[in-house]
Amino acid sequence: MSKLYVRSFSLSLDGFGAGPDQSIDDPLGKGGMTLHQWVLGTQTFRKMFGRDGGETGIDDDFAKRGFENVGAWILGRNMFGPVRGPWPDESWKGWWGDNPPYHVPVFVLTHHARAPLAMDGGTIFHFVTDGIESALRKAKDAAKGRDVRLGGGVATIRQYLRARLIDEMHLAMAPLFLGKGENLFADLDLPALGYACTERVSTPAVTHLIVAKQAR
Amino acid sequence: MSKLYVRSFSLSLDGFGAGPDQSIDDPLGKGGMTLHQWVLGTQTFRKMFGRDGGETGIDDDFAKRGFENVGAWILGRNMFGPVRGPWPDESWKGWWGDNPPYHVPVFVLTHHARAPLAMDGGTIFHFVTDGIESALRKAKDAAKGRDVRLGGGVATIRQYLRARLIDEMHLAMAPLFLGKGENLFADLDLPALGYACTERVSTPAVTHLIVAKQAR
Repeated sequence: MSKLYVRSFSLSLDGFGAGPDQSIDDPLGKGGMTLHQWVLGTQTFRKMFGRDGGETGIDDDFAKRGFENVGAWILGRNMFGPVRGPWPDESWKGWWGDNPPYHVPVFVLTHHARAPLAMDGGTIFHFVTDGIESALRKAKDAAKGRDVRLGGGVATIRQYLRARLIDEMHLAMAPLFLGKGENLFADLDLPALGYACTERVSTPAVTHLIVAKQAR
Repeated sequence: MSKLYVRSFSLSLDGFGAGPDQSIDDPLGKGGMTLHQWVLGTQTFRKMFGRDGGETGIDDDFAKRGFENVGAWILGRNMFGPVRGPWPDESWKGWWGDNPPYHVPVFVLTHHARAPLAMDGGTIFHFVTDGIESALRKAKDAAKGRDVRLGGGVATIRQYLRARLIDEMHLAMAPLFLGKGENLFADLDLPALGYACTERVSTPAVTHLIVAKQAR
């Protein structure tokens, strides 16, 4: 059965998945990029952007797992771009250039309708205006039995967690504090929602955590 | 120079150092005891309560380090006991019986004055009513050049962090979520206060973090 997964989602020791003050120059917010150091050197990440080489090992295994059997993605609008409010025009086409690293349908949550956007390499951005459950249904249909990966950001993951719609998350906890930004855990009672940490693997760069929805 | 240390302070992945609903039967709050599994089997912890045996290794090394060169302790009142408001009488003498595992002067922060309380084994509880800075001065005097260990709880550590009075913390992050209780990190900007994670060591039980005040 098709599952909804969060994969390779980096956060700080104090629970921040992005820094404050996101902007076009700073899409992950101030300090947010430091959370992702663990993945930048991996073979999987380099390959995603057409580069050779890179590290293999545990960090790369986790990164790679995040792309296995993914038939569709869901993104919060802020992960798609810095534009807020109604789309002024159709010029913004994501952070990733003409050939985004998805290669499957991507469902972008937004309050503002927009025509689907076909990119090179098989990525099609669909803009969903009727909420997270609708986006999940559409993504599962599009995935044709494969899984759906929820890319983020923090606010979107929190909505899906509150609705108990996420099956499993792989979080990568970096050994640093951000102090402010978007907090994944604040006022979210994961045990009450039925989530538990089922696996923990530390590498020199990061602590990998698997957080899985428990049967009820 | 005498330093102020937090040592072996356990917390959950979502930052809770104690569970909700603390009571005389549940001094660490609901679920709070699960945070401390890593230390219960160590040689250091068993020895503290007069028992033989126990595990050695990394967890025990961290536990042991917490008792080295400690000349005085500071405790928040809730760590001393469940009594709230004025002391009804002097019958409450801490959670630890006649011979508490401190064996040095212990400064208990409270709003309600009380005479010092000498226990077996060298522990003397002093009740400090004029604030955290005064407690630290008194503890440093009493420690005679050795260090001061701040035992907790969460609210007390947060006060000392906000005042930048803690030199270093050893946190033990257990691989579980509590979802509610007393959060060490909430609305506390550790980088802005000058704190950084300087060391991280994972064991099967827990992730040990050293959080140190940086020179300014």
